[in-house]
Amino acid sequence: MEVPVSSAEITTAIDTIWVLLTAFLVFFMQPGFAMLTAGLTRAKNVGNILMKNLMDFCMSSLGYWAVGFALMYGVGNFFLGGSFFFLRDIAEETSGVPTLAFWLFQLVFAGTAATIVAGAMAERTRFRAYLIYSLVLSAVIYPIVGHWVWGGGWLGELGFLDFAGSTVVHGVGGWAGLMGAVILGPRLGKYRDDGSPNAIPGHSLPLAMLGMFVLWFGWFGFNPGSTLSGMQAGLIAKVAVNTNLAAAAGAIVAMLVAWLRTGKPDVGLSMNGALAGLVAITAPCAFVSPLSSIIIGAVGGVVVVYGVSFLDRVRVDDPVGAVPVHAFSGLWGTLAVGLFHETSGLFYGGGWGQLGVQSLGVVAVFAWTALTAGTLFVIIKYAIGLRVSREEEKMGLDYGEHAVNSYPDFGVTSLG
Amino acid sequence: MEVPVSSAEITTAIDTIWVLLTAFLVFFMQPGFAMLTAGLTRAKNVGNILMKNLMDFCMSSLGYWAVGFALMYGVGNFFLGGSFFFLRDIAEETSGVPTLAFWLFQLVFAGTAATIVAGAMAERTRFRAYLIYSLVLSAVIYPIVGHWVWGGGWLGELGFLDFAGSTVVHGVGGWAGLMGAVILGPRLGKYRDDGSPNAIPGHSLPLAMLGMFVLWFGWFGFNPGSTLSGMQAGLIAKVAVNTNLAAAAGAIVAMLVAWLRTGKPDVGLSMNGALAGLVAITAPCAFVSPLSSIIIGAVGGVVVVYGVSFLDRVRVDDPVGAVPVHAFSGLWGTLAVGLFHETSGLFYGGGWGQLGVQSLGVVAVFAWTALTAGTLFVIIKYAIGLRVSREEEKMGLDYGEHAVNSYPDFGVTSLG
Amino acid sequence: MEVPVSSAEITTAIDTIWVLLTAFLVFFMQPGFAMLTAGLTRAKNVGNILMKNLMDFCMSSLGYWAVGFALMYGVGNFFLGGSFFFLRDIAEETSGVPTLAFWLFQLVFAGTAATIVAGAMAERTRFRAYLIYSLVLSAVIYPIVGHWVWGGGWLGELGFLDFAGSTVVHGVGGWAGLMGAVILGPRLGKYRDDGSPNAIPGHSLPLAMLGMFVLWFGWFGFNPGSTLSGMQAGLIAKVAVNTNLAAAAGAIVAMLVAWLRTGKPDVGLSMNGALAGLVAITAPCAFVSPLSSIIIGAVGGVVVVYGVSFLDRVRVDDPVGAVPVHAFSGLWGTLAVGLFHETSGLFYGGGWGQLGVQSLGVVAVFAWTALTAGTLFVIIKYAIGLRVSREEEKMGLDYGEHAVNSYPDFGVTSLG
Repeated sequence: MEVPVSSAEITTAIDTIWVLLTAFLVFFMQPGFAMLTAGLTRAKNVGNILMKNLMDFCMSSLGYWAVGFALMYGVGNFFLGGSFFFLRDIAEETSGVPTLAFWLFQLVFAGTAATIVAGAMAERTRFRAYLIYSLVLSAVIYPIVGHWVWGGGWLGELGFLDFAGSTVVHGVGGWAGLMGAVILGPRLGKYRDDGSPNAIPGHSLPLAMLGMFVLWFGWFGFNPGSTLSGMQAGLIAKVAVNTNLAAAAGAIVAMLVAWLRTGKPDVGLSMNGALAGLVAITAPCAFVSPLSSIIIGAVGGVVVVYGVSFLDRVRVDDPVGAVPVHAFSGLWGTLAVGLFHETSGLFYGGGWGQLGVQSLGVVAVFAWTALTAGTLFVIIKYAIGLRVSREEEKMGLDYGEHAVNSYPDFGVTSLG
Repeated sequence: MEVPVSSAEITTAIDTIWVLLTAFLVFFMQPGFAMLTAGLTRAKNVGNILMKNLMDFCMSSLGYWAVGFALMYGVGNFFLGGSFFFLRDIAEETSGVPTLAFWLFQLVFAGTAATIVAGAMAERTRFRAYLIYSLVLSAVIYPIVGHWVWGGGWLGELGFLDFAGSTVVHGVGGWAGLMGAVILGPRLGKYRDDGSPNAIPGHSLPLAMLGMFVLWFGWFGFNPGSTLSGMQAGLIAKVAVNTNLAAAAGAIVAMLVAWLRTGKPDVGLSMNGALAGLVAITAPCAFVSPLSSIIIGAVGGVVVVYGVSFLDRVRVDDPVGAVPVHAFSGLWGTLAVGLFHETSGLFYGGGWGQLGVQSLGVVAVFAWTALTAGTLFVIIKYAIGLRVSREEEKMGLDYGEHAVNSYPDFGVTSLG
Repeated sequence: MEVPVSSAEITTAIDTIWVLLTAFLVFFMQPGFAMLTAGLTRAKNVGNILMKNLMDFCMSSLGYWAVGFALMYGVGNFFLGGSFFFLRDIAEETSGVPTLAFWLFQLVFAGTAATIVAGAMAERTRFRAYLIYSLVLSAVIYPIVGHWVWGGGWLGELGFLDFAGSTVVHGVGGWAGLMGAVILGPRLGKYRDDGSPNAIPGHSLPLAMLGMFVLWFGWFGFNPGSTLSGMQAGLIAKVAVNTNLAAAAGAIVAMLVAWLRTGKPDVGLSMNGALAGLVAITAPCAFVSPLSSIIIGAVGGVVVVYGVSFLDRVRVDDPVGAVPVHAFSGLWGTLAVGLFHETSGLFYGGGWGQLGVQSLGVVAVFAWTALTAGTLFVIIKYAIGLRVSREEEKMGLDYGEHAVNSYPDFGVTSLG
């Protein structure tokens, strides 16, 4: 005596499973970022950077529950939303899945934006400053951009396309990181008196590589999950394939460019090339062909190598390359929608319209993030202090901020 | 010429995919525990602890195949089951999925219970003693508790609620670990003559943090997968969100409590706070609101900080905090069902009944586990020896038990 | 006003979700191999081995897009396929899922075959040689074997059964690794003048164990995903259970055999025992019972212990045991289909026919791989050089090939 199940129940189940499982994958990017950032920084700061990675996601979880989701998806105006604070009075379903499933998927995106900044500001930022910043970013700064593009706001209305967040997520995180790195200033010893950079190598290449691979894995949730539906078989397959091809192309091209420039295939730049490819394809993955994805990822690989050099030339110290990977390559990927979109892209006879809207979007998000994050960092700087003391920076933030030695059984040579 | 597919076939497929994919996530908690425990112990014992983590899951796999599943889900009485040994004569389906899928999901839970003990007994337990113990726990001690609650036994009949195993899994593992730690006694050098504890820091904070994040990730299988059905979209979304919020609240509150007590935001306690939040929400996740989940997780964060101090005061040496995280916070979470259950909870006008049954359940499971695991450890102690020799403990169990150096390329300072 | 969804749309969605999610799991085996291989080699070569693991997957991605898929699944003859180069003119669906989803699943298998070789040839292979080799293997050598068995070619036609690739994937990777290890010769210092082997321990047991667990996790995609359909609930449950039981049995038996031979339960051999169990069950997992799976995995555990000794006796230096795990145990697992297949197996009254076809298949794939990979390595050797210089090998490939120190904050003792 079987109870018949309606096709609506079935598609809701399929969509919910898909959204939740991909949300779990995006959550898993948190240890990806943690291992990548820890591996690319020094052993004396590793406990601090791990703790920041943990706590920014925790702060994001509560902040996005209380405020962030309301500003992003609440009923509001062109600029921000204004209902559903503390998940109150939410609809049972949103986009065809239970609203709580939708919320979790959106939360892990907010957490990603927050965590990107940790890398750019690593090895010198006060822990309590970081806690405040990450809460504000995930609860206010990011959700408002999200509202503009995905929550019914003005950029989405204009036709701005950012499928999974090259600009919404990676741009916001990357530009905020740039503002933070500029306001903090470089780490002690990063630049010589003549302005030339000292390499400060990360303490563990295996951790960094593990983090990179975990991020790539998580991106299979980030991009394909952004369909928000498991029923669109063709689309999610295309998004998954495009994501992978762009990452591969980004890594290969970054390796080749670095090889030509320095005579060696650089491991760190190759890893960042893969990530740059992933960031670049995040906006266009649903709208472009596999071949276009390879080109987009490859250009991302070029962008990251030159972006790292550029930051060094202007003496902005970004220890892990977060700004080139997320901000610069995210910018490129967002514009690439205007070039490679299979109907509205310039290269496909779609004219300049899409490219124009994409340009407007990246400028607007850059302006908003630079303004708000910059203001926030300056307020923190003068209110409680943004940067640790010189003594603490020399001894390491692990000791100064947390009274911990991350590797007590090893003779760590970077300890002050 | 399409062959029509019945809705029963479709829902079976959806449920099976869900159960298997979440089982895979729960399996992945094995390296989570391995990395967490390895990171929180010394470099001279790391190969041993990793080997224990590997082999307990292997022993569980065969033990749960031969005996455990039969005792837990076999046809039996109020106390234990008694059919399906060696997976013989099993039904084609159980709970709407192929019995083998159901079995795998149950196995990874048994493996989790077994592996929890490794942490509490780390750095001094003989390897062959550990092999025996983990087989008995996963094949007999745990399955009988499982039968009481989930397999048709007396606790379930009384209305005891433990959705995903705060008591069934984490309680059994945690209380067994407590018995083991008590019977073993503390590690050499852990307590001074005046009884005050010496901190023995773990050798790698990055490994520990990686393990914590992997466990959090795996918990998205542990709790949402315990619906055993992918068709209950609303429920699995709620469980996933509650799980995440409790973890975040546990970490934040543990950090704040430690900060107030010691002046520093402690990394290890924050990690354990997240895990305590996860353990606490495991029983109630399907029955409570997101706000309640935050409270339950937050209290878990308090429990773990004071639990660690308490164990040190009574000189029980639990190197990784497994007892506070799994036993104490699991106890709290199980009782919390009686407080926060949206219909039967005390705070929701449900009266004292649910809380009473929950209390009975935790007492019964504590008594059973303490009695059986305690007896087992004492038998092992006198039959083959539970603890390694003083010399071996000083030199490290890696050398003594496995003739291996886990880090031969580094000058490890903890080596004897 | 619900739009009715056809059952074909639903089953396509379920199958696509299943194929993609399991493909993501198989992708995740890449960091599994990376961590395993890095952990089992020396600190001075770890950046190089990680870079190889990254780049072989990137090269595979582009190579399998351009050529590999066409040779494997293109319309062709008994020997190879010949359409779909660069994913051009592909059908909308293949095996009931979007062709791009099918492609991604096949790509991650090709990437697995390619990455296996890195281990056998570790610590002495030139990076640029590796790049060329991994492209040719994933774009030509592997796809042609794949065509024979899975793409409509002659071995599949004869009834050769290899469900998820004990021979197609692990055999090709393992035999190619053997040819590479033979042609390269042993690492400096591996064999004494009297021919007895020097142990060269890997630099990090935790990394290796993490890699092993990640591989086991990924295998839940590798084998169950090879159904290519989420609708076959009973089959995927059986495959998942068999996979897990074989791994557990392999680890336990390898541990016991090593224990009997050396007096200690060896960590590295136990890990390789689990992997050998996984490789062995990969071919038969869909055709055999759980009990047979335990036997097949257990024999895999024996094979790997004796296989490691055998290679040392013939002075073939395989730093991580890739050949015993993938080639020898893959050979065993493929033959085991002929013994344990529930209808056509010798032990089930099916006669010698299946075993004969299985034997023919493993011989053919060995011959093809030995010939083509051997030729490739010899060409590379004389054209650009297969092995680094003695000086570079002593200093470490990290410095020589990439100008990097993977652990700059630690005093690494293996550095030249």
